Amino acid sequence: MDALVEQLLSGLPAEALIVDPDVTASYAHDMAGFCEAGAPAVVVLPRTVEEVQHVMRTATALRVPVVPQGARTGLSGAANAVDGCIVLSLVKMDRILEISPVDRVAVVEPGVVNAALSRAVDEHGLYYPPDPSSWETCTIGGNIGTASGGLCCVKYGVTAEYVLGLEVVLADGRLLRTGRRTAKGVAGYDLTRLFVGSEGTLGIVVKAVLALRPRPPRQLVLAAEFPSAATACDAVCRIMERGHTPSLLELMDRTTVRAVNRMTSMGLPESTEALLLCAFDTPGAAADLAAVGELCTEAGASGVVPADDAAESELLLQARRMSLPALETVRPATMIDDVCVPRSALGAMLEGTATIAERSGLTIGVCAHAGDGNTHPVVCFDPEDPDESRRARASFDEIMALGLELGGTITGEHGVGVLKKEWLARELGEVGLEMQRGVKAAFDPLGLLNPGKLF
Amino acid sequence: MDALVEQLLSGLPAEALIVDPDVTASYAHDMAGFCEAGAPAVVVLPRTVEEVQHVMRTATALRVPVVPQGARTGLSGAANAVDGCIVLSLVKMDRILEISPVDRVAVVEPGVVNAALSRAVDEHGLYYPPDPSSWETCTIGGNIGTASGGLCCVKYGVTAEYVLGLEVVLADGRLLRTGRRTAKGVAGYDLTRLFVGSEGTLGIVVKAVLALRPRPPRQLVLAAEFPSAATACDAVCRIMERGHTPSLLELMDRTTVRAVNRMTSMGLPESTEALLLCAFDTPGAAADLAAVGELCTEAGASGVVPADDAAESELLLQARRMSLPALETVRPATMIDDVCVPRSALGAMLEGTATIAERSGLTIGVCAHAGDGNTHPVVCFDPEDPDESRRARASFDEIMALGLELGGTITGEHGVGVLKKEWLARELGEVGLEMQRGVKAAFDPLGLLNPGKLF
Repeated sequence: MDALVEQLLSGLPAEALIVDPDVTASYAHDMAGFCEAGAPAVVVLPRTVEEVQHVMRTATALRVPVVPQGARTGLSGAANAVDGCIVLSLVKMDRILEISPVDRVAVVEPGVVNAALSRAVDEHGLYYPPDPSSWETCTIGGNIGTASGGLCCVKYGVTAEYVLGLEVVLADGRLLRTGRRTAKGVAGYDLTRLFVGSEGTLGIVVKAVLALRPRPPRQLVLAAEFPSAATACDAVCRIMERGHTPSLLELMDRTTVRAVNRMTSMGLPESTEALLLCAFDTPGAAADLAAVGELCTEAGASGVVPADDAAESELLLQARRMSLPALETVRPATMIDDVCVPRSALGAMLEGTATIAERSGLTIGVCAHAGDGNTHPVVCFDPEDPDESRRARASFDEIMALGLELGGTITGEHGVGVLKKEWLARELGEVGLEMQRGVKAAFDPLGLLNPGKLF
Repeated sequence: MDALVEQLLSGLPAEALIVDPDVTASYAHDMAGFCEAGAPAVVVLPRTVEEVQHVMRTATALRVPVVPQGARTGLSGAANAVDGCIVLSLVKMDRILEISPVDRVAVVEPGVVNAALSRAVDEHGLYYPPDPSSWETCTIGGNIGTASGGLCCVKYGVTAEYVLGLEVVLADGRLLRTGRRTAKGVAGYDLTRLFVGSEGTLGIVVKAVLALRPRPPRQLVLAAEFPSAATACDAVCRIMERGHTPSLLELMDRTTVRAVNRMTSMGLPESTEALLLCAFDTPGAAADLAAVGELCTEAGASGVVPADDAAESELLLQARRMSLPALETVRPATMIDDVCVPRSALGAMLEGTATIAERSGLTIGVCAHAGDGNTHPVVCFDPEDPDESRRARASFDEIMALGLELGGTITGEHGVGVLKKEWLARELGEVGLEMQRGVKAAFDPLGLLNPGKLF
């Protein structure tokens, strides 16, 4: 038995360790394609904070890199193993420790599944908004690591907005408490927020205090068909400019609509160039939808169909949620981009993406959290074809370059991981990158936490 | 002419410098009482980013400490000068550079006055929520430095929620860009949020991209009288537990009510032990207020008076805004605390504060952002009386200790500054403090930025 396993076993039960290479290999990567992934030396599945501290003390003593993981549903390779690492899977720490309707907080361990939390708080009339499309399987710890978004963000923001306080095991095994469980607090630097989106490179989140909201009414959805992406984006701008607060404002392009129709029997309108979905979750939702319908018509919509009820609304949302899986069937493989631009630049972003698609000769379907300006262009290609692969990667990069040119960011909600680390440097610039590295060094001087990610 | 002034003048116009000690002395401190303040060597009032960079390069070259200042309305001594420092006042950088209704952002320089921004965005049908009580004079840069709150926070959160991106001049004069102007973005560590509330210890904010919201309807206010602080706090818990989203939920105790009546002719009910103000800024505000009124009655309110209209509502808000000035007239001096506890512990906090007041023999009036659990106990005393001063400081400290015991924080929105730096260590603990110092060292290795604050 090697020294690493021996030392890990001195503070962990045997069943918390996996050393069989056939099994550890299955923990090597998340759901991002085309990202390097090494072979873990061992996978550990701790159940307590003390066990996590033991793992980190061991890693520090033996200078072994540690890759923290949730459900590995991430799309940037941030959870990918490196050779010889300890994979630290937090999925067994899955207890909801507290739900307080008066304080409107939940206290959870990192392995709690997003949907499990959502359902648990719902029983108290409460709402945990962040809803990444993997919400049925992804964990809160993973959501915190990548600052996950979802369909709700246009009204409710991303995961970062809901993390009030954390307990974090540092690289050397010490326990750090950050933040608070109060509604407000400004005591010292906001380290809580620093950990959100840090992709496991600063510490291991072992407990989180999350803010909750009262459960809103079920949302009512309207679908609007547009003759062009430009007119749909114009409608998005009008809706936001007039002061509406939709709970969802999503766009599917023609490629996406057709892919969804091929995969399901939803019968979405195939002649549309862009389908816009807009929802409200207020008591006055019907009136809001009517006003939004008029704005869509003014912007050039060829058809506006408000859902009659919550059930019909849910069907439309299903169509939107099927977008990525459906686009994945177009060709043998996909690369999913995640560029977010200022809302006012959304039209230019979609137009530019269409030009990139045309030039590359590839299919690039786009679905977008349009209200946020957050587009997911999905580059479809055959990885067996070297030329197609090359064009796919080039298009993927050109889309990010376009996003930066338009004042946007290379990642709205999926994170950097290994997929976009060269691009992070371009977005942040030299000074920005240096300060980020300074923060990393302050928390992880030996560079053991999730090496090769972000930078 | 000394070397510092000479070097500053090499990159600044003469009128941007103040060296007359009588004048520089007037820049020595903010509005916090009983905080040490040194004598500045010079006050500089730059108008451009390049001038700020020149100041910081000079400070680094000559190893001179720099104390950044906004309008000096802070309540923790965070803007107090240290001996021989450069006071770097940002008040002349007061341009609103952009307001975009489509992107719902404003881009501003740090010296813009909060109220000036609020009025400017109002003309576009937009709303910048953070509203500290000094909003007519305080600056956005100061608000960012202290992560200011206000009356709006129970619904809209604090300044931190509205800062999307920053331009920051670092200690060595380099320019750092953080964040974004997009609705979402997760590219790298959230340095933007790290600067918010950092009290000028990490860098000089020279530009900010701020999130805006659609302007809500004017709020309608209800006043409820309670026979005890405990029953009023019970009402607060019931209101939040039932899923209401008030735009304001404030409490004034009997001492505060009487002080306001003495100062004004408002005629608030003097027999009440606690006056609760609750407001809604939704289209259905009247119905929401009726429901809240019932909850107040259930909790034991002796009287519930909804305002008839926006004008009457504004009068009630005026009474609340007069609370601190009115309490300041009770005795020659005051110390204003800022403890925030979980909402569910608000009753215990107020009860404990009353016990501390009784034991000290001093008047301690309490107004509170009750919906946030954020209390402002105001310790009234005569600084000429050494024994009274000693008891005042002891009570001020006991209130913070009580807040920590109840799971709260020593500062909900006023910051740490010099006033509470010993207490920050108590709240953060050893590991927390060490990591905070690590962050400080990464940004300001020479320790020139606002020394003696926070830590």
